[in-house]
Amino acid sequence: MSTAEETSGGEMRPWAEVTPDAARRLLVAAVEAFAERGYHATTTRDIAGRAGMSPAALYIHYKTKEELLHRISRIGHDKALAILNAAADGEGGAAERLSVAVRSFVRWHAAQHTTARVVQYELEALGPDARAEILALRRQTDAVVRGIIQDGVAAGEFDVPDVPGTTLAVLSLCVDVARWFNVNGPRTPDEVGALYADLVLRMVGAGK
Amino acid sequence: MSTAEETSGGEMRPWAEVTPDAARRLLVAAVEAFAERGYHATTTRDIAGRAGMSPAALYIHYKTKEELLHRISRIGHDKALAILNAAADGEGGAAERLSVAVRSFVRWHAAQHTTARVVQYELEALGPDARAEILALRRQTDAVVRGIIQDGVAAGEFDVPDVPGTTLAVLSLCVDVARWFNVNGPRTPDEVGALYADLVLRMVGAGK
Repeated sequence: MSTAEETSGGEMRPWAEVTPDAARRLLVAAVEAFAERGYHATTTRDIAGRAGMSPAALYIHYKTKEELLHRISRIGHDKALAILNAAADGEGGAAERLSVAVRSFVRWHAAQHTTARVVQYELEALGPDARAEILALRRQTDAVVRGIIQDGVAAGEFDVPDVPGTTLAVLSLCVDVARWFNVNGPRTPDEVGALYADLVLRMVGAGK
Repeated sequence: MSTAEETSGGEMRPWAEVTPDAARRLLVAAVEAFAERGYHATTTRDIAGRAGMSPAALYIHYKTKEELLHRISRIGHDKALAILNAAADGEGGAAERLSVAVRSFVRWHAAQHTTARVVQYELEALGPDARAEILALRRQTDAVVRGIIQDGVAAGEFDVPDVPGTTLAVLSLCVDVARWFNVNGPRTPDEVGALYADLVLRMVGAGK
């Protein structure tokens, strides 16, 4: 991961993996439309219009509006999991790895707050199969953070009476950055990440 | 505050202050419809239908859909602020008051998670005047928590390098309970409140 990518939480070119270009433009348009009006109030016609394309052109790439939401949610959750796995597999003790995990996870939620909001708030609009797939990814995300915390407890670095509850709280704290983060606010994604890493180390009793 | 009211975060009979009964039923129907489909995808006809009333009957009580959202948001924010003020004005040192504030604020967000989600996620659907009014209430909410943390720092009870940032994180952690809380999940609102009060005391360095 390059320094430039790290600065924005590994998301310098969001959706770069979506090809061809028309499919990518439609996905970006869908994220914006869902964030502005909500999934249910958005039509495929709205999305095609935002992307400067016809509804017929949209159907070449996506059969339904739900397929767009599923694709957005899948890519978003894959990214979040990759960010946490990179931190968990990194060097250093549990405190250092947890700190890196929180910093990069928060940076991603701040920098990609529009996508993160859609991914978090429209989960219930997915059909049963798509939702089951996303929930499995969320359990993996949870397991990565719980693993770091368990490592810290086992090594005597952390003091955590309730590991599952603390894991839930740490992830919740990071995810909610997407709700309140304001690009015109006083803090950069990096500054929020640094503040939160410090707060999370306190939550796990990593005697600083 | 009675014990029964405390158990559910001071919200045994939500919307009890809305009268007459028809106006209250319409508000409850609006909360459910906004939570399920989003504000923009909901019509006043949908809301009236859910309440078993005609659209004409709805207009007797609310001129527009936005008036319903504004009323819901105003009542929700007033309740949240009242809960925090009660804790801030309570007995005991800063640690005890912060603990009570977090417990009751979390309980409210868990027990009233449907309302809290609507209030948090549809803020941008309000018109400029209504939004300004709600943002002023949010600044008051922030000030109450910041005040308790500042008291703790001044008394030497807390160790907080960044008071505004920590205040933001504490409120964010509590508010996000509304997103993930599941009535069929393993934890009651009260148990989440107790866990979070402990985690927040760690965040402010209240040497437990």
